[in-house]
Amino acid sequence: MCHHCVIDSVKDRMLSRRDFFKGGAVAGAAAAASLAAPAPLFAQKAMPTKAEDLTHELFEAFPTFFNEQQLFKKALFNYAEHKFNINEWRFNEHTGTHLDAPLHFSADGKSVAEIPVADLVCPLAIIDIRQKAADNADAQVTPDDITAWTDANGDLPEGACVAMLSGWGAHLETGKFRNVGEDGKTMHFPGFHIEAAQMLMEAPSVKGIAVDTLSLDHGPSPDFAVHYAWLPSGRWGLECVANLESLPASGATLVVGAPKLRGGTGGPSRVIAMV
Amino acid sequence: MCHHCVIDSVKDRMLSRRDFFKGGAVAGAAAAASLAAPAPLFAQKAMPTKAEDLTHELFEAFPTFFNEQQLFKKALFNYAEHKFNINEWRFNEHTGTHLDAPLHFSADGKSVAEIPVADLVCPLAIIDIRQKAADNADAQVTPDDITAWTDANGDLPEGACVAMLSGWGAHLETGKFRNVGEDGKTMHFPGFHIEAAQMLMEAPSVKGIAVDTLSLDHGPSPDFAVHYAWLPSGRWGLECVANLESLPASGATLVVGAPKLRGGTGGPSRVIAMV
Repeated sequence: MCHHCVIDSVKDRMLSRRDFFKGGAVAGAAAAASLAAPAPLFAQKAMPTKAEDLTHELFEAFPTFFNEQQLFKKALFNYAEHKFNINEWRFNEHTGTHLDAPLHFSADGKSVAEIPVADLVCPLAIIDIRQKAADNADAQVTPDDITAWTDANGDLPEGACVAMLSGWGAHLETGKFRNVGEDGKTMHFPGFHIEAAQMLMEAPSVKGIAVDTLSLDHGPSPDFAVHYAWLPSGRWGLECVANLESLPASGATLVVGAPKLRGGTGGPSRVIAMV
Repeated sequence: MCHHCVIDSVKDRMLSRRDFFKGGAVAGAAAAASLAAPAPLFAQKAMPTKAEDLTHELFEAFPTFFNEQQLFKKALFNYAEHKFNINEWRFNEHTGTHLDAPLHFSADGKSVAEIPVADLVCPLAIIDIRQKAADNADAQVTPDDITAWTDANGDLPEGACVAMLSGWGAHLETGKFRNVGEDGKTMHFPGFHIEAAQMLMEAPSVKGIAVDTLSLDHGPSPDFAVHYAWLPSGRWGLECVANLESLPASGATLVVGAPKLRGGTGGPSRVIAMV
């Protein structure tokens, strides 16, 4: 599918799902006029007492979308010889637990260095689809899942990041993380449905979405529909997030330690949650 | 100076300055038995309302200790041709606003990936030596500066990072950041005095030190005395920290978004303070 076909297809599907968005279920949907609208730094009422690491360790064989090695380490100085250690690393920006900046899927969107720091600290809403993902590796976060979350937890907090917990982090060091099907190429892992992304885009304050898999779009996506809708809107995404199962569905605060690479389309990030 | 001479010299100076440490001025000095002792996540009493970015943007010409380029960017995919953008970066771990892990100056200290996440979130104490640094580029944070801080602000908070604010961040894109002297090689910028580092090491809960210059040791240091004392003790350092002047001397909470590189001796970090 060519780029323009992809965009048209995505737009059509967005419009067709407008009726799914009820308007009242996302805090600030009516009030917030732009992404830059200030939101409280912390959603929780009590001072956080614990930091949880949502970051996978980065190693050279970290699984990748394209199934080619994307991280390379080289020792420059070693203690035995030089009395100090220094390494050089080479990496594709989209490796490990990492951020997708708007520039990743747009001609002139914000680079990772241009995302305001206030947008890297936000309340975290976790949508648990582990049960359906266990039954179906191609499961997606749908508008119904978002509605189920707000039914159980109240409005999405202003300026939130909405994360998918599919349980896929447990498969990181096995073939099931990429989960290539019988055709030898199509991957099968969970992601966001374009209609869920569109629903969240109608809540202007939502800053980011996060997944514990290799892509915001689910494995068999033919068109990166979520990438092409979400990122050019000025929002960010997080992929290969770890350890979401250690957190409550609502109430944690996310800090995205994204690298401040000039012109970067994203990058390996230290992602920490406070609870 | 050979490695063993350096270590012996550092040890001698540590012992000679023990009388500078009064014991009572650092919270938890007596009680905390190890670096792993739990400390409150936030020092401030009120919920933080603002995030300050303490990270310089990373660009290929970012000044370096060795005065050789340490960061390289290469486009792998571009929007015009591929409908998405991805870059590859190559970097020396000790580039930009970055963390020094214990492994940087020890044979077998903790790598950057092995630092517990709880040690990357801590109260921030800022020692302002801008006035003396303006008069003397070789100025150092001394035990007297630490005592002046505790006299003004009370005990150092449990588990703190102690940061030097020398004002050097303003020189980042000028020759004054490295500030090479008339001999054509010796650099002149502020850093920690070994006796201040030793004083802080006697407060077992202090997790890190930070500087707004290229090195924990001041420019003319012949022996990396602070590096060789501080890092092998299991603590971390931050170099080239930005924007400390925007923060209060006491009361901010630091989040160090260090890259979780397996076997890494440190790395470019997203450093964010909450106030």
